[in-house]
Amino acid sequence: MRVMILGIDGYIGWSLACAFASKGDVVWGVDSLLRRTLVENNGGCSAIPIQPIEDRWKLLRTAFHAEANYEIFDISKEYERLLYFFKEFKPDVIYNLAQIPSAPYSMASREKCIYTMENNVIGNLNVLYAMKEVCPDAHLIKIGTMGEYGTPDIPIPEGKCKVTVGSTVAFLPFPRSAGSWYHQTKVHDTHNIRMACDIWGIRCTDIMQGIVYGVKTAELLHHPELNTRLDFDDQFGTIINRFVVQAIIGHPLTVYGSGQQIRSILPLQDSINCLQLLAANPPEKGVYREVNQFYKYAQLNHLANVVALAAEELFGENVVIKHIMNPRKESESHIYKPAMEVLPRLGYINSEPIGKTIRCMMINCFDYKDSLKLKVSCIDPNVFWAE
Amino acid sequence: MRVMILGIDGYIGWSLACAFASKGDVVWGVDSLLRRTLVENNGGCSAIPIQPIEDRWKLLRTAFHAEANYEIFDISKEYERLLYFFKEFKPDVIYNLAQIPSAPYSMASREKCIYTMENNVIGNLNVLYAMKEVCPDAHLIKIGTMGEYGTPDIPIPEGKCKVTVGSTVAFLPFPRSAGSWYHQTKVHDTHNIRMACDIWGIRCTDIMQGIVYGVKTAELLHHPELNTRLDFDDQFGTIINRFVVQAIIGHPLTVYGSGQQIRSILPLQDSINCLQLLAANPPEKGVYREVNQFYKYAQLNHLANVVALAAEELFGENVVIKHIMNPRKESESHIYKPAMEVLPRLGYINSEPIGKTIRCMMINCFDYKDSLKLKVSCIDPNVFWAE
Repeated sequence: MRVMILGIDGYIGWSLACAFASKGDVVWGVDSLLRRTLVENNGGCSAIPIQPIEDRWKLLRTAFHAEANYEIFDISKEYERLLYFFKEFKPDVIYNLAQIPSAPYSMASREKCIYTMENNVIGNLNVLYAMKEVCPDAHLIKIGTMGEYGTPDIPIPEGKCKVTVGSTVAFLPFPRSAGSWYHQTKVHDTHNIRMACDIWGIRCTDIMQGIVYGVKTAELLHHPELNTRLDFDDQFGTIINRFVVQAIIGHPLTVYGSGQQIRSILPLQDSINCLQLLAANPPEKGVYREVNQFYKYAQLNHLANVVALAAEELFGENVVIKHIMNPRKESESHIYKPAMEVLPRLGYINSEPIGKTIRCMMINCFDYKDSLKLKVSCIDPNVFWAE
Repeated sequence: MRVMILGIDGYIGWSLACAFASKGDVVWGVDSLLRRTLVENNGGCSAIPIQPIEDRWKLLRTAFHAEANYEIFDISKEYERLLYFFKEFKPDVIYNLAQIPSAPYSMASREKCIYTMENNVIGNLNVLYAMKEVCPDAHLIKIGTMGEYGTPDIPIPEGKCKVTVGSTVAFLPFPRSAGSWYHQTKVHDTHNIRMACDIWGIRCTDIMQGIVYGVKTAELLHHPELNTRLDFDDQFGTIINRFVVQAIIGHPLTVYGSGQQIRSILPLQDSINCLQLLAANPPEKGVYREVNQFYKYAQLNHLANVVALAAEELFGENVVIKHIMNPRKESESHIYKPAMEVLPRLGYINSEPIGKTIRCMMINCFDYKDSLKLKVSCIDPNVFWAE
């Protein structure tokens, strides 16, 4: 398979590239390296150091004898270059992961809101146009987020839902209710992609993904030199990854608000497995396929307890869980019951229980404990929704 | 009332400015004059000539002894200037009409798609940020379109709809299904505004408006020197206005496809009346109020017949109706039953039957028959959805 990964230098992008390269697939990628810059600007860093871009590509090619290629540019700004890259490569499947993935970053200022909108929405439109022009039969795999749904007082379906007006019933896309500009960009992409499938006959799998945690996949375990990034700062560190680093450096695990919020989660290995499963089972041409992608769902309080327990068992130290004022504006008490049918039907099963993934992360991060302590100031929230 | 109109040089913006100014309200406006440029670039013009911007403002101030002010800049690109304008004026109500309103323009090329997205979505985000900073209690009145709903196989509600998942029921925003990038920008705005109301406590009336036709309001009838624009080219001319110009110049009325598509419509006078009614009856702070705004709905074939009949009665000439290949990708056979409750409850009634508005338009356009004939090449569709 000819695999194009946009955003190949990121957390999931890089892990996915290694997974495909190790199987002998041809992998080409694009990245603007924006994630590295934004995390650095926020005082953060990858908890486990990653190689500079040139080095990690040399290492990848060596490790897997891979036919792999990359270019550094911004797909939201350099369409002609994207088009040329598409024409040169003629991909079978395109993963668009070239998006700023941070709710707090997008809420930090007007400038950052607009930047996230332009980067994510325009970037994705450019991908749709390039596909239409170069490879209208290829398969777009786009990562959205379970956060697009918000927390409606109703179970969350996968795909369409039953809408009743008067005595008439129709099955329509489930209404979105996102809670940050970042999440809104994913909602906008969802609408744009659905239209491109209808009008241009593009085929797309649009993934509503839970929060990813963990730092190792099968390939990265065997090739530690190929580490993917692991962020823990308030803007780019997602909840479980951040808790793990907090536990390592003896910082309280900071739970936003009551911690009764429920989120869906999945380990990095599951995310990669699902992304590959979906590529191996594309939808028909012109079909917009919506997929919920998660392992399970849990209250934030439960996640904090799981991380605390793992740290206490591993290191014998007492871990403090601290509730802090919720910087976000979100419901802290809601039902949460998302459906997931497509991926299990394709064969998805969880790769390992959460405790095991967390212990693996802790063992891998532990060596960097002292340098991580120096970065402590990037962890507490600095962006407040209502300000 | 201190009224700010963004997009004040446009078809509705200008008519609205005259309506408020004639009542003694203070009116400030912004426009980038983009509409004039885009119509000209497409080979079109206003069927009834309009004054240059400086002249029409002088005439407006004279006609109504109005306290009125305007600036020429692009709200999607010059945020600091927008902010300053807000601070200087401190509006009670803000109309955001500063949007590119053309489905065909947005589908003409990637560049025009992106430009429409940036102009409309970023412009509206700038308005939300300026309101948050300067006048969080003001009332935003935003014009979306009935086209946001698409043509689902179900009556279209106003506001929320009943969604059933398993045995659970919730009332959620009605799912959008737009059919062009232009319509998508309005969907994106809808989502963005709803979030700004939730998170920042903005109050907004988001109008899903039908297709507006006609060229006169009470104020414009008394002050013909204040003409608003009337477009008829394939990109900016909406259906009834275009039919009227076609009838005037002896061009067949071109119906796209079977003509069985149903659209909601309203005369310009009704649009202005509704926009003023909504300003006089604002929602509570933090409330996102969704309003369907139209007079009635009809098949395109019916609209062509009404225009043909009016022209034959007025001028005694035979008018040809011609079905041409539909340049759009849309359902030509669908149910259509939109609800409208908010506006009638506030007192909205139709100002005059469609035949009368159309005859008024014809009489006003007739003087320009010869010059309009020279513009005939801008009328037939040049943008095709599936290309």
